[in-house]
Amino acid sequence: MFNQKRIRDYGVEIGRLETGPFNAITDVEGVTVGHVTLSDNNMQTGVTAILPHQGNIFKEKLIASSHVINGFGKTMGTIQMMELGTLESPILLTNTLSVGLAADTLIDYMLEKNPEIGRTTGTVNPVVGECNDMFLNDIRAKFVKPHHVLQALESTSSEFEEGTVGAGTGMLCYSLKGGIGSASRLMEMQSGKYTVGVLVLSNFGILSDLLVKGKAVGQELKEAMLASYKEEDKGSIMIIVATDLPVSERQLNRIIKRSVTGLSRTGSIITNGSGEIIIGFSTATKIPHEKPEHCLTVPQIHEEDMDMAFRAVGEATEEAVLNSLVTAEAVIGRDGNERPAFKDLIQKFGIQLK
Amino acid sequence: MFNQKRIRDYGVEIGRLETGPFNAITDVEGVTVGHVTLSDNNMQTGVTAILPHQGNIFKEKLIASSHVINGFGKTMGTIQMMELGTLESPILLTNTLSVGLAADTLIDYMLEKNPEIGRTTGTVNPVVGECNDMFLNDIRAKFVKPHHVLQALESTSSEFEEGTVGAGTGMLCYSLKGGIGSASRLMEMQSGKYTVGVLVLSNFGILSDLLVKGKAVGQELKEAMLASYKEEDKGSIMIIVATDLPVSERQLNRIIKRSVTGLSRTGSIITNGSGEIIIGFSTATKIPHEKPEHCLTVPQIHEEDMDMAFRAVGEATEEAVLNSLVTAEAVIGRDGNERPAFKDLIQKFGIQLK
Amino acid sequence: MFNQKRIRDYGVEIGRLETGPFNAITDVEGVTVGHVTLSDNNMQTGVTAILPHQGNIFKEKLIASSHVINGFGKTMGTIQMMELGTLESPILLTNTLSVGLAADTLIDYMLEKNPEIGRTTGTVNPVVGECNDMFLNDIRAKFVKPHHVLQALESTSSEFEEGTVGAGTGMLCYSLKGGIGSASRLMEMQSGKYTVGVLVLSNFGILSDLLVKGKAVGQELKEAMLASYKEEDKGSIMIIVATDLPVSERQLNRIIKRSVTGLSRTGSIITNGSGEIIIGFSTATKIPHEKPEHCLTVPQIHEEDMDMAFRAVGEATEEAVLNSLVTAEAVIGRDGNERPAFKDLIQKFGIQLK
Amino acid sequence: MFNQKRIRDYGVEIGRLETGPFNAITDVEGVTVGHVTLSDNNMQTGVTAILPHQGNIFKEKLIASSHVINGFGKTMGTIQMMELGTLESPILLTNTLSVGLAADTLIDYMLEKNPEIGRTTGTVNPVVGECNDMFLNDIRAKFVKPHHVLQALESTSSEFEEGTVGAGTGMLCYSLKGGIGSASRLMEMQSGKYTVGVLVLSNFGILSDLLVKGKAVGQELKEAMLASYKEEDKGSIMIIVATDLPVSERQLNRIIKRSVTGLSRTGSIITNGSGEIIIGFSTATKIPHEKPEHCLTVPQIHEEDMDMAFRAVGEATEEAVLNSLVTAEAVIGRDGNERPAFKDLIQKFGIQLK
Repeated sequence: MFNQKRIRDYGVEIGRLETGPFNAITDVEGVTVGHVTLSDNNMQTGVTAILPHQGNIFKEKLIASSHVINGFGKTMGTIQMMELGTLESPILLTNTLSVGLAADTLIDYMLEKNPEIGRTTGTVNPVVGECNDMFLNDIRAKFVKPHHVLQALESTSSEFEEGTVGAGTGMLCYSLKGGIGSASRLMEMQSGKYTVGVLVLSNFGILSDLLVKGKAVGQELKEAMLASYKEEDKGSIMIIVATDLPVSERQLNRIIKRSVTGLSRTGSIITNGSGEIIIGFSTATKIPHEKPEHCLTVPQIHEEDMDMAFRAVGEATEEAVLNSLVTAEAVIGRDGNERPAFKDLIQKFGIQLK
Repeated sequence: MFNQKRIRDYGVEIGRLETGPFNAITDVEGVTVGHVTLSDNNMQTGVTAILPHQGNIFKEKLIASSHVINGFGKTMGTIQMMELGTLESPILLTNTLSVGLAADTLIDYMLEKNPEIGRTTGTVNPVVGECNDMFLNDIRAKFVKPHHVLQALESTSSEFEEGTVGAGTGMLCYSLKGGIGSASRLMEMQSGKYTVGVLVLSNFGILSDLLVKGKAVGQELKEAMLASYKEEDKGSIMIIVATDLPVSERQLNRIIKRSVTGLSRTGSIITNGSGEIIIGFSTATKIPHEKPEHCLTVPQIHEEDMDMAFRAVGEATEEAVLNSLVTAEAVIGRDGNERPAFKDLIQKFGIQLK
Repeated sequence: MFNQKRIRDYGVEIGRLETGPFNAITDVEGVTVGHVTLSDNNMQTGVTAILPHQGNIFKEKLIASSHVINGFGKTMGTIQMMELGTLESPILLTNTLSVGLAADTLIDYMLEKNPEIGRTTGTVNPVVGECNDMFLNDIRAKFVKPHHVLQALESTSSEFEEGTVGAGTGMLCYSLKGGIGSASRLMEMQSGKYTVGVLVLSNFGILSDLLVKGKAVGQELKEAMLASYKEEDKGSIMIIVATDLPVSERQLNRIIKRSVTGLSRTGSIITNGSGEIIIGFSTATKIPHEKPEHCLTVPQIHEEDMDMAFRAVGEATEEAVLNSLVTAEAVIGRDGNERPAFKDLIQKFGIQLK
Repeated sequence: MFNQKRIRDYGVEIGRLETGPFNAITDVEGVTVGHVTLSDNNMQTGVTAILPHQGNIFKEKLIASSHVINGFGKTMGTIQMMELGTLESPILLTNTLSVGLAADTLIDYMLEKNPEIGRTTGTVNPVVGECNDMFLNDIRAKFVKPHHVLQALESTSSEFEEGTVGAGTGMLCYSLKGGIGSASRLMEMQSGKYTVGVLVLSNFGILSDLLVKGKAVGQELKEAMLASYKEEDKGSIMIIVATDLPVSERQLNRIIKRSVTGLSRTGSIITNGSGEIIIGFSTATKIPHEKPEHCLTVPQIHEEDMDMAFRAVGEATEEAVLNSLVTAEAVIGRDGNERPAFKDLIQKFGIQLK
């Protein structure tokens, strides 16, 4: 997408399933992604918005689930998602201290689109995830303002940039520059052909742990760089999983949990700091806000068909993380803190990825 | 407290354990509560703040836990609380659509008190609970502003009002006016004398289900009133539990879960709408933000001593709900919607509570 | 059922919903219950079997869920039930130390009915719940043998006894004799007329806490009896919920969780010892063991219709507990330990239940 | 141990932390392991017993936790472990259909050692894990008898065999022969030097997914072997984690969850079938069965020290899985079903592991 060089362009193919046309979360029909990037000196942050479908998500909710890999995080909206099994708002990603503001603005956005909220029907559950970008960004300054959030929500598209962009502007990955990455997989089953797409906001990892398709590239790179390279990990990643597979919320939960396999295969030990949280939704069934006359019928695959989805989500997560790393640009941010770009370093030091 | 007539003043004594001096959450030493009440025509809402101790809660965290009775709610901050077992901010209660704003302001408040956040240490986890007051309050207008939140945080005291006050201004209870209520119990154990205190933000219940110490007062009242009395339930309650009992986060979780017994004994069937969420903390151990040289040692009671705490939290919750009901004042709010005061109705119709 | 005098026969009507014809779990079509009672001196124990439907439950699984109120228990089979959302075996209840034997025999029973298990298909997940009957029963003697378990499985019927019978033979309730109790409720919804049925194995509670429809009958009885009456609680109850309501496993979980409201209204504080565990299933959808050609479609009610089910399960649980208490016969068991029958005591002391 | 050639003997070193002297779970002081192996034609199964310490585990319980990676399994005893945070029995591993028998025998074993159970104190919570060995073993025959279970419990030692032994006798790993494997890591912290040890019962994986320290050895091997090699996965692993690190049950849970990183790095996609369950305990604190006069004090590391434990458990799990694979012997079992040994195949086809 957007002519960025992605991990496949380096000849690294993750897994065995076919990718979708964009090799991105937007291969799931109806899903779009928008970024607002705030990058200037001490300000290295932003917002990323994911629209789960192009209709009114409050009136036509999607089956959804979340899973906490590591709960040292401030993600909002998962309590209701787990109780009701549905998503009824776009998903926002931003920096940790902007979660409240982002939620507040998302509420305004939903109120504006749904005049019946708070009048003839109840309230709305905003979903906001975060990572901590304080190393490069003056996070205390709270640069994200309501109009940024709205702009991200209103500028979504099925093609979008990765790396140092949107919520990923100030994030780190394996102690280098990280941020937004995405990938997708196709799943051919007896009952149809389906897609799973993953978008990550990467902000975790210790350089010397980094694996690229099993190769200890991080260790190699660390040895090539100055020995003193600071590689402390505050360990955080948001993983958004979209699919058009017909699943129950329980099945979806089983699927999204497997993204940890891909994450682990990039080298993560899932450190203590900050949060690692997955949010997933399926576009296969729309759950109406208003009670219909008859029972709903929710189509779902048989449990025996789950393995392909488990493989797909693991592969797509692994590739999305690597895409976030390989597309990111070097950044000099708060107080001159800097993080180099992986792509620059491997070129500089002549590291082979395969 | 404040000369409000509480349920005991009607001769109704819940349970068999002794109450603390205030018979309120503030009987747990160090806990204070503050309200900001916004009441004028269509505006019937507010903020309630609970300070868990009077020191720096970010630097000296408390063992904490949360439990979801019904997750149809938007409470923030419980993911990290469950992962780390600690509370590191005051607890705010407000209306559903003000959660984002309240969290954003609580972040500002914490940043101001802790200049190292986002600089030499990580971020902070704001805890905000909510109920939906849209029946009496124009919730879409989002009347709560940052200065209201700060005012609630800065005006806390060990004595505080109940009923139609703070976050409880526009809330309902058993289809009548509800809001803030509190109660406490003393626990005499071999290892010491301890207190458990409960504060509720009540916003649930169907009039005809209301029980007062087992007596079907709600049904009696409904029959006395017009048959057409609207008693739909959107069912929501926030329950805050404080104790000075030395417990692990697991033990605390077991204790706070038992508040559902008291809630049930007031007649609740725990309906579908909105959320019923419990947040608890123990002041017995302070967990330092900075890593100490040696291991921490956390004192905890033996599991066999838990029954007294289970009884205490059930009793205090039951009494806190009744206090929220019996102290509330009648309100005419949004679009002329009105909810009468329980205390007025029982007088008008000559209902005996015992 | 069987001419036992139940709580309604004392004029006590719990709740407002209509009961099914048996007012028992067997009002859910296809559900049957069988008991084996072992009662002789030190031997006061048994087995109760619940068949969820009359077909092959392994080949036609039911949507199922479980919920742990208090996990101080040894129930088997809930891990898989929560992962897959299905029940694939009958449910057994017995004493705590017989769980292994009961599971082992249930495996044999399932192997015999399904020769393909362990050959062309995988294994089976036996579900066994328990309470501790050591006060009246010499539990160390492990009186339950495989033929007892098989007998319970093979003698089920839609009419069954309550009280001192089957797994309930040696159990206590509110410090008196307890055991098996059941009740049901009808739910008239727009989409159809449904039933929820509850069966409890009661073995919990402190006499002075006992409430009968809000009336403090336990306290009254305690005062009438010798002051020295031992009323320690080792607190345990198994609650089995059956329904024909079309629900997802998530919805079913929400429903069964509400049984705690009924339990609480009988006076329970949910003490530390032993386990309080709920297992529920819906007969509305059969999930085939073998993968079908097409996706499954699972009918489910809209979330707004849940309140009636919440009310129904609370009422049925409250009544089932009272039925277990009021139908139980006095027992003298291990080492002369004895527990009187509630029905004898209220007659002896002239206690009014309403 | 026992002169078996382990993965390190092939020059493959996993991770960067130092191993304990045995490089096994028994490096945690007090932990011992015993096997009973039943291997003869159609009978390819057994029992493995883990004693958490050498004292009376019922009277001196250990802090414990469990985590379900994939709940398609029949493990017993985790409900109480999660509620009370303790382990009070040895841990048994066996085949899926022998779980009931194993539990029943473990109860007998505990009764015999603790005459007060069921008399002056309550019951005991037996912990039994399982995998399905039906491919090589006639699992329907239920070959495991009580004396086998007792023999495993009574023959434990700090040195023990790996591979085709005990519960691992009939298990598969990456579609080859698998079974028991173990490894350990040392953790040097400011507060002391600690050990984490892992024992796995491996029975999962698709050959072509197998990674050995990132190298796609499975794919290479598959291409070298006949294309028709059956590599269906019924995906199951039991992971037992022991440590002497002073931790709360919450902290322990965080640690054991990280074993999924090591599992993933061997190539697992965590397929649908059978269960993947972790049970962990810490020997640092003994929780007395009888209530002491004073509060307990539980020493625990600060959260910031967790990362080393997270790394250790991931490394040890990865190495334990590889040890289970590389030590296993070829087996011809039920109906002539056979599984080759990894070590034979890599020699035969000249596969390099590094």
